Amino acid sequence: MTYRPPLRDLAAALKAAGYDRLGEAFPEADEATAAAILEAAGEFAADVIAPLNRPGDLAGATYANGAVTAAPGYADAYRQYALGGWNSLSAEPEFGGQGLPKALEIGMFEMIQAASLAFGLCPMLTQGAIEALTAHGTDRQKALYLPKLVSGEWTGTMNLTEPQAGSDLAALTTRAEPDGEGGYRLTGQKIFITWGDHDATDNIVHLVLARLPDAPAGSRGISLFLASKFLVGDGGDVGARNDVRPVGVEHKLGIHASPTCVMAFEGAKAELVGEENNGLAAMFTMMNAARLQVGTQGVAIAERAYQQALEFSRERKQGRSAWTGANPAPIHDHPDVRRTLLLIKAKTQAARAICLATAVAADLSRHAATPEARETAKLREELLTPIAKGWSTDMGVEAASLALQVHGGMGFIEETGAAQHYRDARILPIYEGTNGIQAMDLIGRKLSMAGGAAIRGLIAEIRAEAVGNARLLAGVAALEEATDWLIAHKGAPDALAGATPYLKLAGDVVGGWMLSKMAGEGEDYARLDRFYAEQVLAGAPGLVPAVVQGAAVLEEAL
Amino acid sequence: MTYRPPLRDLAAALKAAGYDRLGEAFPEADEATAAAILEAAGEFAADVIAPLNRPGDLAGATYANGAVTAAPGYADAYRQYALGGWNSLSAEPEFGGQGLPKALEIGMFEMIQAASLAFGLCPMLTQGAIEALTAHGTDRQKALYLPKLVSGEWTGTMNLTEPQAGSDLAALTTRAEPDGEGGYRLTGQKIFITWGDHDATDNIVHLVLARLPDAPAGSRGISLFLASKFLVGDGGDVGARNDVRPVGVEHKLGIHASPTCVMAFEGAKAELVGEENNGLAAMFTMMNAARLQVGTQGVAIAERAYQQALEFSRERKQGRSAWTGANPAPIHDHPDVRRTLLLIKAKTQAARAICLATAVAADLSRHAATPEARETAKLREELLTPIAKGWSTDMGVEAASLALQVHGGMGFIEETGAAQHYRDARILPIYEGTNGIQAMDLIGRKLSMAGGAAIRGLIAEIRAEAVGNARLLAGVAALEEATDWLIAHKGAPDALAGATPYLKLAGDVVGGWMLSKMAGEGEDYARLDRFYAEQVLAGAPGLVPAVVQGAAVLEEAL
Repeated sequence: MTYRPPLRDLAAALKAAGYDRLGEAFPEADEATAAAILEAAGEFAADVIAPLNRPGDLAGATYANGAVTAAPGYADAYRQYALGGWNSLSAEPEFGGQGLPKALEIGMFEMIQAASLAFGLCPMLTQGAIEALTAHGTDRQKALYLPKLVSGEWTGTMNLTEPQAGSDLAALTTRAEPDGEGGYRLTGQKIFITWGDHDATDNIVHLVLARLPDAPAGSRGISLFLASKFLVGDGGDVGARNDVRPVGVEHKLGIHASPTCVMAFEGAKAELVGEENNGLAAMFTMMNAARLQVGTQGVAIAERAYQQALEFSRERKQGRSAWTGANPAPIHDHPDVRRTLLLIKAKTQAARAICLATAVAADLSRHAATPEARETAKLREELLTPIAKGWSTDMGVEAASLALQVHGGMGFIEETGAAQHYRDARILPIYEGTNGIQAMDLIGRKLSMAGGAAIRGLIAEIRAEAVGNARLLAGVAALEEATDWLIAHKGAPDALAGATPYLKLAGDVVGGWMLSKMAGEGEDYARLDRFYAEQVLAGAPGLVPAVVQGAAVLEEAL
Repeated sequence: MTYRPPLRDLAAALKAAGYDRLGEAFPEADEATAAAILEAAGEFAADVIAPLNRPGDLAGATYANGAVTAAPGYADAYRQYALGGWNSLSAEPEFGGQGLPKALEIGMFEMIQAASLAFGLCPMLTQGAIEALTAHGTDRQKALYLPKLVSGEWTGTMNLTEPQAGSDLAALTTRAEPDGEGGYRLTGQKIFITWGDHDATDNIVHLVLARLPDAPAGSRGISLFLASKFLVGDGGDVGARNDVRPVGVEHKLGIHASPTCVMAFEGAKAELVGEENNGLAAMFTMMNAARLQVGTQGVAIAERAYQQALEFSRERKQGRSAWTGANPAPIHDHPDVRRTLLLIKAKTQAARAICLATAVAADLSRHAATPEARETAKLREELLTPIAKGWSTDMGVEAASLALQVHGGMGFIEETGAAQHYRDARILPIYEGTNGIQAMDLIGRKLSMAGGAAIRGLIAEIRAEAVGNARLLAGVAALEEATDWLIAHKGAPDALAGATPYLKLAGDVVGGWMLSKMAGEGEDYARLDRFYAEQVLAGAPGLVPAVVQGAAVLEEAL
């Protein structure tokens, strides 16, 4: 099963996402250049990474004697990835980056993830470390670590979770003690550390949340530290092994080629990143970027699963075609199968555009011409991020499941490969903040930002473009009704009870809006829009009662 | 993780399903007797079978040297199951059965399946063989095979699928040649044969679809044969090994303890069951019963996954309770988590009642007092069967996924056990006719049966009971609108294009009806009804556009 880079769909989605608005800030990244970069990225993803996906699932990353070995071929592919410059698209030129738009990077990233989610996690985490150090590091830290992370010569990790502290990071207990020389020693155990150890690079830069002595309890007592696998001298030379080690890898449902490590910090040497007790803020810098990337993973797995199901549907012959009467006909010619495929395709394209629109907003939030435009874009980015993460990853799981279903009994046989997508996809609604957390972020902080300006602006924009589009108008009216109710009930359990259906409603409507923007790009996109309007968007008004039911029905324990 | 038999929920669902209507035909199976039988079955399921589920997933059934060995403990548990009389609840007393209602058997069966889907498949397939032989076997065949199958001393299999013939059985090529002595020799290969071989019993009775020489092409040339693993003499003595052998077991996504065999028939001795070239009709007898049982598997896996998620939600502490303010609080005290749990519970209970209502209809179709009542019940059974199978199994997959999500990161770790349910559940929408096939059966044959009398009768009954229930009234109006459209477009691709959303709509509405019937059984059931009405039933009208969109949007190939 080969992977075909969806270059035309990416171009259409970039256009719908407003990529042309980046022209002023990124004159060198015009549409033609973007297309050329995406074509090359797609080729790399399809030729080098995609063939590793199934063997990587079978072999997995392995742990022995305090060290992790990447799945066969993964270390080499990673080095090719770094050498090809794919790790540095959007990073600052000052540190070796190419200064290209994030929107373009997200497009590239989707194809890498489609080729192998397990592979893509390694650069994804590095990206988070780059973001955190760029925003919060000292000049010395930036000079010392960023060039190696940007080039991909070293990788980065995020060390947040502890056994008792997952969604609730306030509960974490890893200790950081000053060593009397301006540095710190970290002691504690972290779990679920993605690519926490491996043999693909000479060094690994761990960003770690921990507590200083006498730090306040809860989330206001957490600081961010950097502890590298091998100590780094002031000249950038790699020295002695630090006391941070993997003590095992998890046996997971999917993404077997991504080592998920338990990490032990036993007096590991570390340095502070950002201010004391301000670690959560720094961590959110990493996490916001990561959330958009995880949303993109949802698009990626949906696309990969779709391609495989489509190919199967053309080859597998069963029964009579509903249209031509041919018997036996490819199952592609059965309306129910084709409907399933079109449903995956339409939702994938909607989610693709949502993620790219989030990335365009992120680019504009830094590079738009005026402070007002940057602020407006920042609000849009923040509003869309939980939708991009939550809706796209729920969609990714649904798409992988539907694609497996297209295979019938063959889908349940591991050798077919459809089952791997179903297994791999399942982590996406969980990590980088579960989708429940995304929904609470959306209805809590995001709806009330700037007095509701972000969501009001989005609703107004959709409505203005929906003239004459009855399904989209009804959808946006439903979104507004649910929004008003949530804002009126802000902070109450009632609002929390409506969070998940609201995120679905918002994604369904924004997705429909995105598809309507693409309807002019060709008959196939017009068809996706038409199909989605009746199959998905028509359900939007029926979601409002679920949002506004309130929490009374939940109050009794189960 | 222990399994707790949901005896109270089963009792409430049986009542909603109309179990009291069976009193005349089954005077010995009154409510108290049924409760006692279910309690004993639940104890057996929880104590003997449930502990095997996780080890069975890890070890799986194994194939070596032409024979399958059941997963550790499974053969012994199966023999206990047979000795306990659990295999014979609904079978005819003439052949050793207990002559109890199918509705009671389905209740029992749910708990066996919840304990282990992989285990439950073995008696499920035997049940199918019993049904087929009871309906189509000769007196000699009944006398020779039924007592052993009913007691569980032997097991049965269904040999339908071939590599090129899955959903389209008309394409099968296994040959049956008369041996000149009144018997036949079977030659061919069958795949996906559940419990096709094992070491739990002395013999296995294979029911096999094959073609006679000069049989018409297509589905009208298929006959049903019986080929036992060991030949059976006229006195019932087990003799020589027959030439039917497993040649391998599949490596599957889930239900690892259920051996899914490739079976080779190499001149295997066989006898005809039913009439020549009438095999599909006989097979449908097996399959209809099996479809209801698979629907029940959907309920079972949802219940098992729910119980595990519920327990986890009570133990796992993260963040602050929305209601009590406690910190850290069990995640059970977060509205979004509790909403997820309640959604699983409500849908599970709705599906449970749908399956039991189908079983009650099946019982009445054989045992109601008048021919008219039997005919009406038969129509109801046939109408509900694809809904019971399709809706309950889609729900089972959704429930397993939601239950995994409740676990957060721990859900993705295989050791937790939530992932097994997610993997195991995924076969249910596929086997015994994919859910797409169910949907086509529903909108094709089932809506038009008796001039539409079955669906009209159902709609009228729901409407009569929905007085004052706005959500249910709107739901049944939506169902009627979609039904009218489908009947008007019968046979056209347009109708086929709407099949899957229609099955969902029908299940959502019938499920809501069932929950409304239970609302008087206690505040907890009233709450399920109230919750489901806003969270699920409110979406019913929004599904109509998906049903009636038509096939034009699908006509172009993808």
